[in-house]
Amino acid sequence: MSGSLVVVGTGPGKAELMTPATLAALAKATDLVGYGPYLDRVPVTRPDQRRHASDNRVELERARHALSLAASGREVVVVSGGDPGVFAMAAAVFEAVETGDPAWRALDIRVEPGVTAMLAAAAEVGAPLGGDFCAISLSDNLKAWTIIERRLHAAAEADFVIALYNPASKARPHQLARAFELLRAIKAGDTPVLFVRAAGTTEAAAIATTLAAADATQADMRTLVIVGASTTRRIGRWVSTPRGAKP
Amino acid sequence: MSGSLVVVGTGPGKAELMTPATLAALAKATDLVGYGPYLDRVPVTRPDQRRHASDNRVELERARHALSLAASGREVVVVSGGDPGVFAMAAAVFEAVETGDPAWRALDIRVEPGVTAMLAAAAEVGAPLGGDFCAISLSDNLKAWTIIERRLHAAAEADFVIALYNPASKARPHQLARAFELLRAIKAGDTPVLFVRAAGTTEAAAIATTLAAADATQADMRTLVIVGASTTRRIGRWVSTPRGAKP
Repeated sequence: MSGSLVVVGTGPGKAELMTPATLAALAKATDLVGYGPYLDRVPVTRPDQRRHASDNRVELERARHALSLAASGREVVVVSGGDPGVFAMAAAVFEAVETGDPAWRALDIRVEPGVTAMLAAAAEVGAPLGGDFCAISLSDNLKAWTIIERRLHAAAEADFVIALYNPASKARPHQLARAFELLRAIKAGDTPVLFVRAAGTTEAAAIATTLAAADATQADMRTLVIVGASTTRRIGRWVSTPRGAKP
Repeated sequence: MSGSLVVVGTGPGKAELMTPATLAALAKATDLVGYGPYLDRVPVTRPDQRRHASDNRVELERARHALSLAASGREVVVVSGGDPGVFAMAAAVFEAVETGDPAWRALDIRVEPGVTAMLAAAAEVGAPLGGDFCAISLSDNLKAWTIIERRLHAAAEADFVIALYNPASKARPHQLARAFELLRAIKAGDTPVLFVRAAGTTEAAAIATTLAAADATQADMRTLVIVGASTTRRIGRWVSTPRGAKP
């Protein structure tokens, strides 16, 4: 049992946003395991490196495969986008360890942090995450929608900035509209809302609007949505949340 | 008005966790502005580069200085730790723009994302941020404590994982104990709590305990505290929050 497993994130997309530590782990690996489009971001550094591409939404299966490879002595890197610990592969790997071969617990497993989507999205528009904030995935593949609603409600009531991951997909077109509806009942209509698409890539594009005017159909799988706190505001062409807050 | 201002974050500490985009911005700058210990992380790449080190807790003054330099035609980089948009300098820069010389709004200002402390802390111990989470700064320098309590309460009630930035300092030794007290009234005593000190540096050290046993005096200015959700658990020597959640 001499193999190893490192879970990494490529960052939001641009090579310049991948950390050197992640690049070093990738260069050392004998096997890369991940969702195809993320593997495509990894430069080829050694011809003998094996790439195991899989479809989206088979995270647990992919994690088990990676753990089996590591247990057989391979130096495995599991490749996520963004940061591997935020709505990505790291938790899936530990879920697979929990329910899998007890010998996997003795493996050398580590996680390399990366730049997660909300940080890249925030940087594109200014500093909307400058105050207390929360991150909620709107995907209800693994989570009851009632839990998502409860968290949206609490975040709005306590005036957090809210970053929404996975706001929409072809299979789930309606969640974001329902989230906006819920938030409109609590927060002011002029609260800044940002749709940042492909943040941290060369195709990045941002729309700054308000909660009253926000149109959920403008989000797709590559969009990160940020809903401001009561203190979030436009300053020139930027959007920022001040560090301070008064009761 | 031909100068520019880029706000960057060095990441948590290790050079391998600073992005190449940030390194490139630093190498291009004529002037670096920042808190001394963060400037010390920046390698010297050009002998003519001026470094303007300042004390901690003078963020707005530092931001104004950086904007004045940029307005005078310099290529300025403002250096934060971690990610500049999370409890760091980016929001201070936009606050300075808002209240300062109207000409500053025409400046070329941009933000480069980085690896923020909670991502490095999470990676040290597994995947505790694997579900919905929030980030709260316990510093009440700029924010009323009542707001902090309201957000802690909401985050606990809605079962977010909670990352606590600035949990303690010499000037504020009691906040974290009060936060634990508040959380204990809502969350189970066996909820995992992590104290991760100097995450993402060569001195990183983590303590995994429970909410019932958590001792606030174990945190200092370099500690990031993570309080789990109801689903967060130990798996072997790691701590992870599964992606899914049931009502």
